[in-house]
Amino acid sequence: MIIVMQPGATKEQIQQVEEMLSSLGFKTHPIYGEVKTVIGAVGDRRLLNTQLITNMPGVEDIVPIMKPYKLASKELKPTKTTIQIDDITIGGQEIVIMAGPCAVENEQVFYETAHKVKEAGAKILRGGAYKPRTSPYSFQGLEEEGLKMLAIARKETGLKIVTEVVDTRDVELVAKYADIVQIGARNMQNFRLLQEAGASGRPILLKRGLSATIEEWLMAAEYIISSGNPNIILCERGIRTFETTTRNTIDISAIPVVKELSHLPIIVDPSHATGTWKYVDSLAKAAVAAGADGLLIEVHNDPARALCDGPQSLRPDKFTLLVEELKAVAAAINRRI
Amino acid sequence: MIIVMQPGATKEQIQQVEEMLSSLGFKTHPIYGEVKTVIGAVGDRRLLNTQLITNMPGVEDIVPIMKPYKLASKELKPTKTTIQIDDITIGGQEIVIMAGPCAVENEQVFYETAHKVKEAGAKILRGGAYKPRTSPYSFQGLEEEGLKMLAIARKETGLKIVTEVVDTRDVELVAKYADIVQIGARNMQNFRLLQEAGASGRPILLKRGLSATIEEWLMAAEYIISSGNPNIILCERGIRTFETTTRNTIDISAIPVVKELSHLPIIVDPSHATGTWKYVDSLAKAAVAAGADGLLIEVHNDPARALCDGPQSLRPDKFTLLVEELKAVAAAINRRI
Amino acid sequence: MIIVMQPGATKEQIQQVEEMLSSLGFKTHPIYGEVKTVIGAVGDRRLLNTQLITNMPGVEDIVPIMKPYKLASKELKPTKTTIQIDDITIGGQEIVIMAGPCAVENEQVFYETAHKVKEAGAKILRGGAYKPRTSPYSFQGLEEEGLKMLAIARKETGLKIVTEVVDTRDVELVAKYADIVQIGARNMQNFRLLQEAGASGRPILLKRGLSATIEEWLMAAEYIISSGNPNIILCERGIRTFETTTRNTIDISAIPVVKELSHLPIIVDPSHATGTWKYVDSLAKAAVAAGADGLLIEVHNDPARALCDGPQSLRPDKFTLLVEELKAVAAAINRRI
Amino acid sequence: MIIVMQPGATKEQIQQVEEMLSSLGFKTHPIYGEVKTVIGAVGDRRLLNTQLITNMPGVEDIVPIMKPYKLASKELKPTKTTIQIDDITIGGQEIVIMAGPCAVENEQVFYETAHKVKEAGAKILRGGAYKPRTSPYSFQGLEEEGLKMLAIARKETGLKIVTEVVDTRDVELVAKYADIVQIGARNMQNFRLLQEAGASGRPILLKRGLSATIEEWLMAAEYIISSGNPNIILCERGIRTFETTTRNTIDISAIPVVKELSHLPIIVDPSHATGTWKYVDSLAKAAVAAGADGLLIEVHNDPARALCDGPQSLRPDKFTLLVEELKAVAAAINRRI
Repeated sequence: MIIVMQPGATKEQIQQVEEMLSSLGFKTHPIYGEVKTVIGAVGDRRLLNTQLITNMPGVEDIVPIMKPYKLASKELKPTKTTIQIDDITIGGQEIVIMAGPCAVENEQVFYETAHKVKEAGAKILRGGAYKPRTSPYSFQGLEEEGLKMLAIARKETGLKIVTEVVDTRDVELVAKYADIVQIGARNMQNFRLLQEAGASGRPILLKRGLSATIEEWLMAAEYIISSGNPNIILCERGIRTFETTTRNTIDISAIPVVKELSHLPIIVDPSHATGTWKYVDSLAKAAVAAGADGLLIEVHNDPARALCDGPQSLRPDKFTLLVEELKAVAAAINRRI
Repeated sequence: MIIVMQPGATKEQIQQVEEMLSSLGFKTHPIYGEVKTVIGAVGDRRLLNTQLITNMPGVEDIVPIMKPYKLASKELKPTKTTIQIDDITIGGQEIVIMAGPCAVENEQVFYETAHKVKEAGAKILRGGAYKPRTSPYSFQGLEEEGLKMLAIARKETGLKIVTEVVDTRDVELVAKYADIVQIGARNMQNFRLLQEAGASGRPILLKRGLSATIEEWLMAAEYIISSGNPNIILCERGIRTFETTTRNTIDISAIPVVKELSHLPIIVDPSHATGTWKYVDSLAKAAVAAGADGLLIEVHNDPARALCDGPQSLRPDKFTLLVEELKAVAAAINRRI
Repeated sequence: MIIVMQPGATKEQIQQVEEMLSSLGFKTHPIYGEVKTVIGAVGDRRLLNTQLITNMPGVEDIVPIMKPYKLASKELKPTKTTIQIDDITIGGQEIVIMAGPCAVENEQVFYETAHKVKEAGAKILRGGAYKPRTSPYSFQGLEEEGLKMLAIARKETGLKIVTEVVDTRDVELVAKYADIVQIGARNMQNFRLLQEAGASGRPILLKRGLSATIEEWLMAAEYIISSGNPNIILCERGIRTFETTTRNTIDISAIPVVKELSHLPIIVDPSHATGTWKYVDSLAKAAVAAGADGLLIEVHNDPARALCDGPQSLRPDKFTLLVEELKAVAAAINRRI
Repeated sequence: MIIVMQPGATKEQIQQVEEMLSSLGFKTHPIYGEVKTVIGAVGDRRLLNTQLITNMPGVEDIVPIMKPYKLASKELKPTKTTIQIDDITIGGQEIVIMAGPCAVENEQVFYETAHKVKEAGAKILRGGAYKPRTSPYSFQGLEEEGLKMLAIARKETGLKIVTEVVDTRDVELVAKYADIVQIGARNMQNFRLLQEAGASGRPILLKRGLSATIEEWLMAAEYIISSGNPNIILCERGIRTFETTTRNTIDISAIPVVKELSHLPIIVDPSHATGTWKYVDSLAKAAVAAGADGLLIEVHNDPARALCDGPQSLRPDKFTLLVEELKAVAAAINRRI
């Protein structure tokens, strides 16, 4: 940690800061520049309430040198985390496809879709039983009834299940049915939900918040790991920018950046990122080529009648074709689907 | 609602869309342009799952004409909502000052601060007992113990209390102590929490999400109103942009825009918006001049020792001076503090 | 074009708007809703100063139905534009690699780099002779001396040349040396430069502005096409967002979106988008997989001594390896490099 | 300047960086942490091509301690710059109003508007003779004819003139007519234009770019000052964000931030920031209350017939009323208009 003193900070002020740092267990190394003095402080910033320093007279700024996350960082754990769900490995050589409708709605359509994504090559079935919707007048999900349909689909197809939880009070119930518990983008900083979901013991699919920096996203993962659950799958799903032709702007560079900073696997959701099925194909290929460990794709047997996010859902035939093409892209970078 | 057909949409496709709209209770008015046909549809869009239309062959886009929120809109209720808490009116001629520390921490410091903000002219005391923090290693609040300290401060000073709730399971407890229940920026789209807090019957202070559009913010308010609670105070607290000299970018234009679109009162939190106490003075004056109905300002008796957001807290003497200056600005626009 | 009237607009106001539209050559189709009336207007919006309407009493909003660009749009020209420079085709089946240092600096290093990118498979050599730099104290380019070095490198290697122009007064000189004239991101809305560069007759590489919407970008292309030059290569190079781990955020979805809206070829500059050489590999593959028609990559024989943008430059050996890998990705989507 | 070494950087790497810094005239101060070593380097970063360091083996990051701008900073010149144009002082106690239409179009309407803004209290007349327009099909300005009309209006009213230049080739001509030369938002990083306009000797009104950080804006000012012209008026006019109810988002906090970092005066353009006349009133008051040194407001005698930006123009009567109200706000903060 580097403390930058204001131009014109007095000797006394510099000394007081050094004394405060010493009293907090830091070793200090002042460097006197022509205009500003800076003080190097060696010790663990995570133990420090930096405001004790920030507010001292003569202090201009504090520059952290270490990352604020620790358990999620590669500095602490350089080897990649893989998550094992029976015979499925997430974060390994294989790129894992998760697919299914936005929401579990109609039983028959759902089972049909499940069978079709299975045939196409998906390993995990997605489907929301609890839906966070911008409008109170939109369909909010079938709740436990939906969870039961997910369980039936799992039994029928052998697919694993990923589904979202939106309320701390539902975590136990959702974790009973789900193989992977999803934290949605809107809840990425719902810290109580992170802790509760983490404590369920299930692997967590953690979507990036709409306006979350990669650092904040890894801090959200830190909440889960520090509550004892290291099995986290990060999911990039687009960030909010000024561009309006797509619903969000997919941040493809998040893939190599996360791989540089963290040991956690990262997947991409091209359907929510773009909001339009016709761009999903292009973005899914980009994500695989960029090094994503998996994809989360919306597929619906009858998108025109979907109660949620139909416009971004692929029909099963298009999805089947896409998976075939993705296999070729994966092979080109020495991975497989 | 206007349905825009693709260039080259066939007569059959146009007819099918018209038939679908009719079957949903809309009256249709096609307009044939040289390149594109558009179909005007008269009826209540809120009743419609627009995806039924979006996904039909030949459809390019749907343009809503009515706002997606209804109960929060001025179209439905043109007169301004005022919220009465005993003798305090929010949304009236008077600009209401809410002030206090970010978090309730140290009992003595807290009561001292409470007395000082009261003397300076604040009507409502803020202080967090449950704190959503970016890092799991940061102070998370005193929880019920903090709520009790808030109640004591209320009794001692006569100030009303506003405090945040972060978990549906705590709503009942928080509502027992608070005069106004706060929904924080990170939870603006935690829809379950909105509904639960709304159902508590307490007035709700609804902060704007970091990357929420004004429309999404009013939709969050719609969740609360539609659950039966019309007493909502909107609070602008800065949005996320590319600029880094301030923690967030305060969106001052949100004040006149919200006043144009909605009947709900709007206040401003200059402390969180900027993250630095030395800019609070300037932004507080700007907010009052722009027409805000109140201010939420962080004041701490000893910011250097604050466990939370010290750098953005004013000392009581600076706050007292600021309120005096704000009175002059309020008078200049024919309002009072 | 749809004119949305305010709730409560009077019959007279509606009639006045209709009369104004008629006098401007539009056919009008009013649709009376319960709350608002909208008026469909059939005619060419590009001929209209919409403010004549926007400011009329009772008018709430104008919703365009046609795109504001015409010559750049697929609506007018559905077939893809290809640009021919001797035996190189941009916008065809082949993905074209443009590579070289950010700036032309040292003669020997430059020629060595040129030979190496040629061997690796690049078809076009990049190198700036005029550099727009954020700081007046940074290296601003060798100007005509740099252009001459570009010409020598072309002669020695057979590579074509792309180089940037930053001032209308230099267009003639730059166009004398360059095979492709580049308009940089900062000048995307320097309309005079667009017109002047367009008039030079050279193909134009038009970078997307840091905060330009895709619509504004296509409008900038419209400036060039409407000045008589249809040979435009669009270049996505990252947009400005709140994320700070990369210099900009590459907008990969711009590739499928541009292909949907326009007939112009689109390439990607992963080096400027990310600002860090170690992410270039991942983003270059993503761009190819997503459908880009080319790549613009910074390569420098000695990045540590580069006067400009060294941190984002690949060494020739890394570049050679990358091109090999890109060939595999291109083959996977049935294209070639 | 602080050089942060990677975790695991070797002694040799650290030594090489120290040697490089020494050879460049810096004094080095290494600080050995548990995980990372940092090296403090004392000297003038502005003299350094930091890439020489960034690219050395073992280097993770460079943290600047000094601002990249020097002449524009308060560190160098703590006293506020005031700009004198005859009897008008910009940057002093008085808040200066600049007003007029977006573009100079119709002679009669223009002179009428000029007289009216003069009567209302404006000191400087705005009006564009060269207009940068998003669409090539929009009105582009009357060029020299417009400049002549500006000169006539100055003679008739005694108002000073501010007008924009968009091409280096026109600087001489524009400077002949203008009292203040404006650099528009789109040209804030058109560095050649900055230098050329600076060299004209006229005071420069420098608008903030749509996506420019405050640091980049001050660096643009540095271009002008370093070319010998210290008379710069910064103008905040809204930045690009995700919010769409206003054309841009006015960054009111830029006022106190600029006052903290720089000695240059700062004014605000509420008309372009919001794009809608009905929000101008609220934002103009906010800007004055926040400490702006002036305002740039669009006023048009007949907005419905304006060829440019009519929707954001106030009618003269509304403007007159606004100036009266602004006087009260100015008085409340001990300034005057």
